[in-house]
Amino acid sequence: MSTYVLVHGAWHTGAEFEPVAAAIRKAGHVVHTPTIRGNRPGDRKDSGLAEAIQSIVDYLAEHNLSDIVLVGHSYGGMIITGVADAAASRIRRLVYWNAFVPNNGECLNDMVPPTYLGLFDAIAAERGDGSVVLPFPIWREAFINDADLETAQRAYDVLNPHPLKTFQDKIALKTNPAEMQIAKSYVNCTEDTAMPHGLPWHPRLSQKLGLFRLVQVAGSHELCFTNPARLAQAFLDAGRD
Amino acid sequence: MSTYVLVHGAWHTGAEFEPVAAAIRKAGHVVHTPTIRGNRPGDRKDSGLAEAIQSIVDYLAEHNLSDIVLVGHSYGGMIITGVADAAASRIRRLVYWNAFVPNNGECLNDMVPPTYLGLFDAIAAERGDGSVVLPFPIWREAFINDADLETAQRAYDVLNPHPLKTFQDKIALKTNPAEMQIAKSYVNCTEDTAMPHGLPWHPRLSQKLGLFRLVQVAGSHELCFTNPARLAQAFLDAGRD
Amino acid sequence: MSTYVLVHGAWHTGAEFEPVAAAIRKAGHVVHTPTIRGNRPGDRKDSGLAEAIQSIVDYLAEHNLSDIVLVGHSYGGMIITGVADAAASRIRRLVYWNAFVPNNGECLNDMVPPTYLGLFDAIAAERGDGSVVLPFPIWREAFINDADLETAQRAYDVLNPHPLKTFQDKIALKTNPAEMQIAKSYVNCTEDTAMPHGLPWHPRLSQKLGLFRLVQVAGSHELCFTNPARLAQAFLDAGRD
Repeated sequence: MSTYVLVHGAWHTGAEFEPVAAAIRKAGHVVHTPTIRGNRPGDRKDSGLAEAIQSIVDYLAEHNLSDIVLVGHSYGGMIITGVADAAASRIRRLVYWNAFVPNNGECLNDMVPPTYLGLFDAIAAERGDGSVVLPFPIWREAFINDADLETAQRAYDVLNPHPLKTFQDKIALKTNPAEMQIAKSYVNCTEDTAMPHGLPWHPRLSQKLGLFRLVQVAGSHELCFTNPARLAQAFLDAGRD
Repeated sequence: MSTYVLVHGAWHTGAEFEPVAAAIRKAGHVVHTPTIRGNRPGDRKDSGLAEAIQSIVDYLAEHNLSDIVLVGHSYGGMIITGVADAAASRIRRLVYWNAFVPNNGECLNDMVPPTYLGLFDAIAAERGDGSVVLPFPIWREAFINDADLETAQRAYDVLNPHPLKTFQDKIALKTNPAEMQIAKSYVNCTEDTAMPHGLPWHPRLSQKLGLFRLVQVAGSHELCFTNPARLAQAFLDAGRD
Repeated sequence: MSTYVLVHGAWHTGAEFEPVAAAIRKAGHVVHTPTIRGNRPGDRKDSGLAEAIQSIVDYLAEHNLSDIVLVGHSYGGMIITGVADAAASRIRRLVYWNAFVPNNGECLNDMVPPTYLGLFDAIAAERGDGSVVLPFPIWREAFINDADLETAQRAYDVLNPHPLKTFQDKIALKTNPAEMQIAKSYVNCTEDTAMPHGLPWHPRLSQKLGLFRLVQVAGSHELCFTNPARLAQAFLDAGRD
């Protein structure tokens, strides 16, 4: 029996991981699905990356969790990297699911194609509260391409505006991921086109982990909505010793 | 219910798409499988790309088709791009299946590895009627690698000599694919080695579509012969809203 | 009915191919699983590549084998290339399974990432008998990533120290693989990360074959342990005419 902590991506909360968590619990494990500061109902949208990371560090401390498999999705890769740097002793293995892998001094936007950067700035300027949202056509075609339209729309409706500052803040790390003395896995969905193809998730970002275990599974960036049971199996294959 | 129009590749006719069409019809849709000018029984083999495109534009007009999902395979990507430029109002979504994606002024040969160009020229010079054929060893190993020998041979026997001029003519487009205001999908067979590996179909050509939906499926460049039902499902996943 | 000869990789013997051989035999074929000189029980560990190749050339002659499908795994790709150069008339088709493909004058180490080279030198220096072993964490995460820990450990326990000289010796070929007049296939396991991702097996090495048939299958570099029946099917798809 292991303890899994699933850390969501931008625009999501922990609630969207519940169907995945249920499948992992069925296999006999304990699963936590915290929501990062900035994405919780009522949170201000001008908070930054350090506070986001700290909110998960605090969660682990409050629940006194140790020997955990810490999973991060997309933007959640920024978070679990920061958490591992701050609380390494609590973590048995890091699992990145189509996630950003930062070295010290990098921000999420450093790993994103230029076309997204301009788009996000324009959307945030219009919204005015520090948050950015994803236009539906990009979500439907490039993020959840394996869904039917109804699932794509239903999933889109539960997203929350994301604090743009968390994409711009540079992460402060004592140790880069490749040098961390923690086991690491990368789960890659083979139809994930959220990062356009000149800049794929894998191997561009996965190889920043140094020695890591690759697990691949068919599906889009949002397999948590389209096939949570299959995603849970991928997390189990990635998370075991 | 949607209307699908399946546009075949070089050396093929619409007839080879019939098993795929049957599976799409079973799902409740209307399917057309026209044959491009230059590949119809009795066609001259010195016709060019503009006439080939026009033959499908005419087909859509004659059958008064609108709101269609227009699918193009391989060379058929040249055709559907030209048709979309000429008759955008009839089209709901373009689906490229391991297909060429041209910008204005490009020809198919611009996207093909040099080794094929010399080979095609030599074969056409020997044939003398403007047509080119594919040598069986290339067909068997690089185009239909997922078939047994009997299927590979039977499929080869139905191919027709292809007008080489359609590979050499530069396409004239008012709008490049990335800027077209039509939804777009790319279906990529993961074992398709018809384009040697320094020059793959995806993402090299798919990314010329701008925002598009990726659908991947196991199989070769000729999945229409080796697993038409699976290919039909990929077209349905690619063609839905 | 065909005759398959399965040539193992570094650290292995023919015995580890027996579950794969059993599945191919069930399909009606004859299968041989020789062990390369340098990996047989009691072999000296300072022997080189030429003797390794010669040991399989001798095996084919002693058993009077002809019209064979000759399969090589990983380091075994060096061996089958040398065997094909020396005994072409015995071979119907070469099948490379996530294997090295050398041209004349190349050694295995020329195709391996620099990080491995330094590691192998250091390990060999410490051992002192000319052999190198693979550290368990690399084996578990990068070679047999699709196994559970028990399978990974059990497989690791049957490996034997490998003569490092066979990685350093340059191969002498009269004909490079792309020019050999023998049919060729490449079987690529899609989760094989034994070669880090800037230097993948396919298409980096497969394209050195010239015209070849691609077969892909889910799994790690050590699918012979994790799913021998599926690997056997891939060999059959790769080995048929």
